[in-house]
Amino acid sequence: MKIDVFINVMTTELVEPIGRLGNLEKRVMEGDVTASQAYAYAVGLYCEKVRSAVFVNAIPSPIANDPAFIEYYRQKKGVVFGDDGSTGATPLTADLLEHMYERNRRVLDIAQFNIGGNTDFLALNLPERNIMKKKTKSSIVEDILGYEAPNYIRPTGYLEPLGDKKFVAMIIEYLSFGEFKDELYIVARINDSPALAGLLIDLVRLGRMALDRETYGTVYEVNAFYMKKPGPPGFKAVSKYYAYTKLLEWAGVKDPRF
Amino acid sequence: MKIDVFINVMTTELVEPIGRLGNLEKRVMEGDVTASQAYAYAVGLYCEKVRSAVFVNAIPSPIANDPAFIEYYRQKKGVVFGDDGSTGATPLTADLLEHMYERNRRVLDIAQFNIGGNTDFLALNLPERNIMKKKTKSSIVEDILGYEAPNYIRPTGYLEPLGDKKFVAMIIEYLSFGEFKDELYIVARINDSPALAGLLIDLVRLGRMALDRETYGTVYEVNAFYMKKPGPPGFKAVSKYYAYTKLLEWAGVKDPRF
Amino acid sequence: MKIDVFINVMTTELVEPIGRLGNLEKRVMEGDVTASQAYAYAVGLYCEKVRSAVFVNAIPSPIANDPAFIEYYRQKKGVVFGDDGSTGATPLTADLLEHMYERNRRVLDIAQFNIGGNTDFLALNLPERNIMKKKTKSSIVEDILGYEAPNYIRPTGYLEPLGDKKFVAMIIEYLSFGEFKDELYIVARINDSPALAGLLIDLVRLGRMALDRETYGTVYEVNAFYMKKPGPPGFKAVSKYYAYTKLLEWAGVKDPRF
Amino acid sequence: MKIDVFINVMTTELVEPIGRLGNLEKRVMEGDVTASQAYAYAVGLYCEKVRSAVFVNAIPSPIANDPAFIEYYRQKKGVVFGDDGSTGATPLTADLLEHMYERNRRVLDIAQFNIGGNTDFLALNLPERNIMKKKTKSSIVEDILGYEAPNYIRPTGYLEPLGDKKFVAMIIEYLSFGEFKDELYIVARINDSPALAGLLIDLVRLGRMALDRETYGTVYEVNAFYMKKPGPPGFKAVSKYYAYTKLLEWAGVKDPRF
Repeated sequence: MKIDVFINVMTTELVEPIGRLGNLEKRVMEGDVTASQAYAYAVGLYCEKVRSAVFVNAIPSPIANDPAFIEYYRQKKGVVFGDDGSTGATPLTADLLEHMYERNRRVLDIAQFNIGGNTDFLALNLPERNIMKKKTKSSIVEDILGYEAPNYIRPTGYLEPLGDKKFVAMIIEYLSFGEFKDELYIVARINDSPALAGLLIDLVRLGRMALDRETYGTVYEVNAFYMKKPGPPGFKAVSKYYAYTKLLEWAGVKDPRF
Repeated sequence: MKIDVFINVMTTELVEPIGRLGNLEKRVMEGDVTASQAYAYAVGLYCEKVRSAVFVNAIPSPIANDPAFIEYYRQKKGVVFGDDGSTGATPLTADLLEHMYERNRRVLDIAQFNIGGNTDFLALNLPERNIMKKKTKSSIVEDILGYEAPNYIRPTGYLEPLGDKKFVAMIIEYLSFGEFKDELYIVARINDSPALAGLLIDLVRLGRMALDRETYGTVYEVNAFYMKKPGPPGFKAVSKYYAYTKLLEWAGVKDPRF
Repeated sequence: MKIDVFINVMTTELVEPIGRLGNLEKRVMEGDVTASQAYAYAVGLYCEKVRSAVFVNAIPSPIANDPAFIEYYRQKKGVVFGDDGSTGATPLTADLLEHMYERNRRVLDIAQFNIGGNTDFLALNLPERNIMKKKTKSSIVEDILGYEAPNYIRPTGYLEPLGDKKFVAMIIEYLSFGEFKDELYIVARINDSPALAGLLIDLVRLGRMALDRETYGTVYEVNAFYMKKPGPPGFKAVSKYYAYTKLLEWAGVKDPRF
Repeated sequence: MKIDVFINVMTTELVEPIGRLGNLEKRVMEGDVTASQAYAYAVGLYCEKVRSAVFVNAIPSPIANDPAFIEYYRQKKGVVFGDDGSTGATPLTADLLEHMYERNRRVLDIAQFNIGGNTDFLALNLPERNIMKKKTKSSIVEDILGYEAPNYIRPTGYLEPLGDKKFVAMIIEYLSFGEFKDELYIVARINDSPALAGLLIDLVRLGRMALDRETYGTVYEVNAFYMKKPGPPGFKAVSKYYAYTKLLEWAGVKDPRF
């Protein structure tokens, strides 16, 4: 059995980056790693001993944002995509903010609520998991707008009968030309798992492309479109529109509409 | 200076009812009471020593729901209205649920988010205060519908630039005739303080009416319309429509439209 | 075959009341009646020749609001309920307005949009049919609030893929205490036909009750809850909450919650 | 007095393109032109006799989409920007559709309502003006998505107390991965005139840039971002994100964020 792509869709865990590659081995040997880190480490060994492969980190744990793991995969001739698959309300928020930026609207505040009835929301009831989610979600505001707009963006609760179709509610208040205040309200019902499924299939294919090109380490152009916190560290979040253009360029695909 | 009505609008506090009147005096002497309980006790003394008066408890602390205080006010020839002034989204939710009940809709779930930028929301960031709010808010669902519909109803966050005009977002999912699923989404922008101001002015006037009638203790007909958790304990929450009819009857006012 | 209740669910037609009973026979003989009027006339004959029966007019044509038909049914020992079955957004609007009225909110404006993909919406594309709908819908505003609030309430369009589950969007702007402006936005997805089906089943049962009691002509207490334009003419629209209480009284049913 | 830029913000008028430049002069002489066409013609004469200038057509009349006028301005050494300034809900819809397209969502239907209380909405009460608006608004759907998604996109009504701050309500239904149906609802309150004011100021500056570069006729890169129906004819509508990139390129401006 020869596997090209491994996918990590574990429940959100509380974890900090390891940082220096030199510490990775030691931490693993001492058992001082989270499940995701152990998994990412094991896939690196697979790359070394079996064949080059891809680790898709679809959860908030910093793997593609951890210099230790990026360097580790580069050395093992593997690829890591991450972190935190960007489906649902976050990419929509990113693109709405870009829409505001391009019109020179001054965003005053953003509140975004999420509630669902699947196990992902159940797990987020634990405050320390919620903190991880918040980190990957709210960095987009300053990166895209260029200033810090007060915001409250986080998964909010668990309500069993909603099932997998989450309820998202959002307000964006902004100043239009001449300091007139406009308000934008979004209500969305989004099937959570299917959105992620489609994203993962794309990432599997793109992972194989990266392997074919021998592009080891991580690929920002892929992460920027598909991830909430695209690695490597140091890159700003960008709007998904911008990321899409960059992704097509990287993939060598021409937009059929133009 | 002769005062008829005292109003308690302190910040939400974590507190349980005292229960038996016999314990009240002792708890006060030992300093084992919250600020609201101390305030309510003092107004009782005022009733005894100066003149009959009204204590309007506009916050979630159980005063009009505490048998100890109801009996205490009856003995002191005072009146207590409470608990937790019902403005904003809660009375609207109550009336929407009544609307569903009267059409025999089966409510599947209710989620209601609240976010604002005033000090009331700031205080609710503290989890133990939030718990008190949740208690007074979600009891309405079962009381009005007659069954327990899963719900997530609570103040959600603090976002300073929203100021006093809070943002409310709500979903109600229900089964229509033949088990077809309908969805109702509410988005509201409500000025928080003015709504309470109007309510308090009504309560001051109704308090004076109660004094004139020598109706001591508490008055369910008043509490039912104006409070989230109307005292005395043992009464169910009712829709505000129903409560309005009862209030007019108690006040001896005829609806000018009919 | 002995039928008790006839239901008229024809497509909306453009029609004015006949007014005087004396003109009804003549108009029928000359063929100068709409389909609904002809149907209502025929059911009257059935009452006379076969047995007492009920005509439920679930569409906007004025039958229970036409003095000619009310008198006609009284003479024939029949019952007419009408006009225009009140499902979907209209009763919700009525109850929201009542909610505003009871809090002394000053409603500034109401806009309500409706779009669906069933044949009812398709028919309303014809402007003259739309006018009939508008008539039965917007009278509620002034009747409930006691003043004329500017409003735009009417079915708006046809969009085939929405099917039977219509999309309703509404804004209500109002002044709170101290003239602060609040806004309420409603978005609803409502299965159109099932809501009407449930209503018609109720009306069939209530129709039989009216026959058993020999209450001929029309019954305001039934119409007020179930109809957009409850007959007989001269009665104001009331909130559905108020109508519900009156309906239970008429039916001799006690609310099991109290 | 030396004017560089003329702006047309007349009320929407019913008009077809002239088509061939050869017909323009004749139509003008016979008075067989609308106010906008006459105005555009006069500015062309100004270009010839006084100095090169820009005609910004901010209304739906086809000027920058009329081959006759494009050629006319090229010959007179003038510039025409148009048609129909793109503010409010239309560019937002364009960008939301692009968001769907980039994720391979299948859009099932779009309904978008607009209601306001300014004279622009008052004028659109006249059906023939409404038709013109519809034309410039709904072409975006097919152009961006690449297929014809059923839609109902048009200004809906006039409600005086809303004033200049219009109310927009929108639904977009689409299939996610695996044919699961998601729904997106947008409610917006947008100050109508300020949005246009800011857009016109941009266009004045860009007009001056075009004159400095002696780029006569029309400029698609400018029209694509600022106009609902960007001229010249034959170009597809594109998302505003895409248009923004092209605009910066044309203007020689680097996005300061990258």
